Amino acid sequence: MDTAASNHDIQASIDSLRSGDVRTLARAISTVENRRPGWSDLLKALFPHSGRARIIGLTGAPGAGKSTLVDQLARLYRKQNQTVGIVAVDPTSPYTGGAILGDRIRMQEHFADPGIYIRSMATRGSLGGLARTTADVTTVLDASGRDIILIETVGVGQDEVDIVRLADITVVILVPGMGDDVQTIKAGIMEIADIFVINKSDREGAERVEREIRALQSLALRHDEWTPPIVKTVASDGTGVEDLAAAINDYVAYLQKENLALKKSVQNWQERLVEMLRDVMLEKARAQFGDGNMAKLAAEVAEHKRDPYTLVEEIAAKATNT
Amino acid sequence: MDTAASNHDIQASIDSLRSGDVRTLARAISTVENRRPGWSDLLKALFPHSGRARIIGLTGAPGAGKSTLVDQLARLYRKQNQTVGIVAVDPTSPYTGGAILGDRIRMQEHFADPGIYIRSMATRGSLGGLARTTADVTTVLDASGRDIILIETVGVGQDEVDIVRLADITVVILVPGMGDDVQTIKAGIMEIADIFVINKSDREGAERVEREIRALQSLALRHDEWTPPIVKTVASDGTGVEDLAAAINDYVAYLQKENLALKKSVQNWQERLVEMLRDVMLEKARAQFGDGNMAKLAAEVAEHKRDPYTLVEEIAAKATNT
Repeated sequence: MDTAASNHDIQASIDSLRSGDVRTLARAISTVENRRPGWSDLLKALFPHSGRARIIGLTGAPGAGKSTLVDQLARLYRKQNQTVGIVAVDPTSPYTGGAILGDRIRMQEHFADPGIYIRSMATRGSLGGLARTTADVTTVLDASGRDIILIETVGVGQDEVDIVRLADITVVILVPGMGDDVQTIKAGIMEIADIFVINKSDREGAERVEREIRALQSLALRHDEWTPPIVKTVASDGTGVEDLAAAINDYVAYLQKENLALKKSVQNWQERLVEMLRDVMLEKARAQFGDGNMAKLAAEVAEHKRDPYTLVEEIAAKATNT
Repeated sequence: MDTAASNHDIQASIDSLRSGDVRTLARAISTVENRRPGWSDLLKALFPHSGRARIIGLTGAPGAGKSTLVDQLARLYRKQNQTVGIVAVDPTSPYTGGAILGDRIRMQEHFADPGIYIRSMATRGSLGGLARTTADVTTVLDASGRDIILIETVGVGQDEVDIVRLADITVVILVPGMGDDVQTIKAGIMEIADIFVINKSDREGAERVEREIRALQSLALRHDEWTPPIVKTVASDGTGVEDLAAAINDYVAYLQKENLALKKSVQNWQERLVEMLRDVMLEKARAQFGDGNMAKLAAEVAEHKRDPYTLVEEIAAKATNT
């Protein structure tokens, strides 16, 4: 296929995507997620159309009721005539297939409404890293014209922090009665919460969780003047979901008033550009080694005949202009 | 300082390190961990002295009793007159300071015995990445002549998988009664377990955990003939710790008999060399950017004036010969 035809195909695909065609959207996301041929050209062409969606990240431990809360939020936004994209990221269960099964059930429920599009990403060790792939999938959804994008992640590990960082608004979901250990896991994401949700707040211990959040907030981890509100919900019956949507609106208004949205985005892009550059350099590093040569060098290092630190410097010096 | 003097310093430092001096060891580890000047030369000089230690990775969720089990193992090895290094990696609690506090308490207990050296690494987002830094710290401990190196990590996220991958033996610690959610978190590390431990095995539910492990094992995730044994322990009173040490010995014997140790090491180095090369090349590419330029480019991307995908390709092309 020559370049002109290929460019024509991409343009047709983008037109179809932006007209709201769900099958084109699904295909574009698969192309980007799995790094199929043309993924990079597709993203280049889509990027100028992105930047309009409101991106909301929601994170919490397994069992916190994330999916139910995300579904309720999606319903609420649909009632307001906004289109919704959901990206469900669960890198912790690659073998149970939980995310994929849950996805199917959720898909069925929303099947009648093309205004809600759900995509599960459970691929640990995906090409390009999970955070990077999620960012790219979000760009596709954004460019397709979705008004709201909800990204849900399991609240553990550096990957998850990287993922929620790309959202405009980060919601951290806690639940009463999960014990100190579970709360400890989430300490790393406390500083990035714009809004706290205590879900299943009809359970015993909701006040204790609230006190713990307040105690952590007193450590003043944020660099701005925003004090993250604590919203109590019972996602299973919809209680508090409107309060959560209102809190999200408040935070968006705050970002706009203080002109922080662009500042946040510039900071995110500084880090994302470096990460993207790292991925590209990795590809070049792999190419530099060559597969056969690599096995031979690795064997020499494993046998302690060569030190890896000098070896890598030598190869890098050859590969780069510096 | 000229190169000759610097080389002389490094040699003196290595002699002192290999004589078992704990202060030199602590300083060398800090140099490598924090990428202080000379870290790279130090590693180059130390590498030829490494490769002798037995490296055991132990991973499990918070509350699984990892630290207690690691301490008990360390005591046992000390009774056998082996020297021990412990690297405790906990990237999930950067704000609570849990690892550092726990480390101090543990250090005090072992203070009288220079044959046990404990180092906590809680630095999320450390310079070279946590897995890379842990590997380098392990090389220092290995070169210092420690017989056994125990690496303990929280069993969540890709970082942890990368960390335990550098061990000769990987021990996965589970506990009864932590609920399905918590067990789900650990699904991703099931395939890398050489030995399973059910700790706190006097609690109700130990049999259920054992059945779950057996069910997962039936999925045949391993590429060799080894069936990971399941060892039951009560780390708090030392029950089963000798069984664990025996299981570790069995696995080492299996590796030797099948000549798998070197093969495993070559595979690990294939991946580590690529990661190391990527890091070096990324540094070179970043240097090419310059910090101010970076902020300017990030702003252009955030304002959607430039597409990041093309931008990154251009920078990478400039930085390399390819």
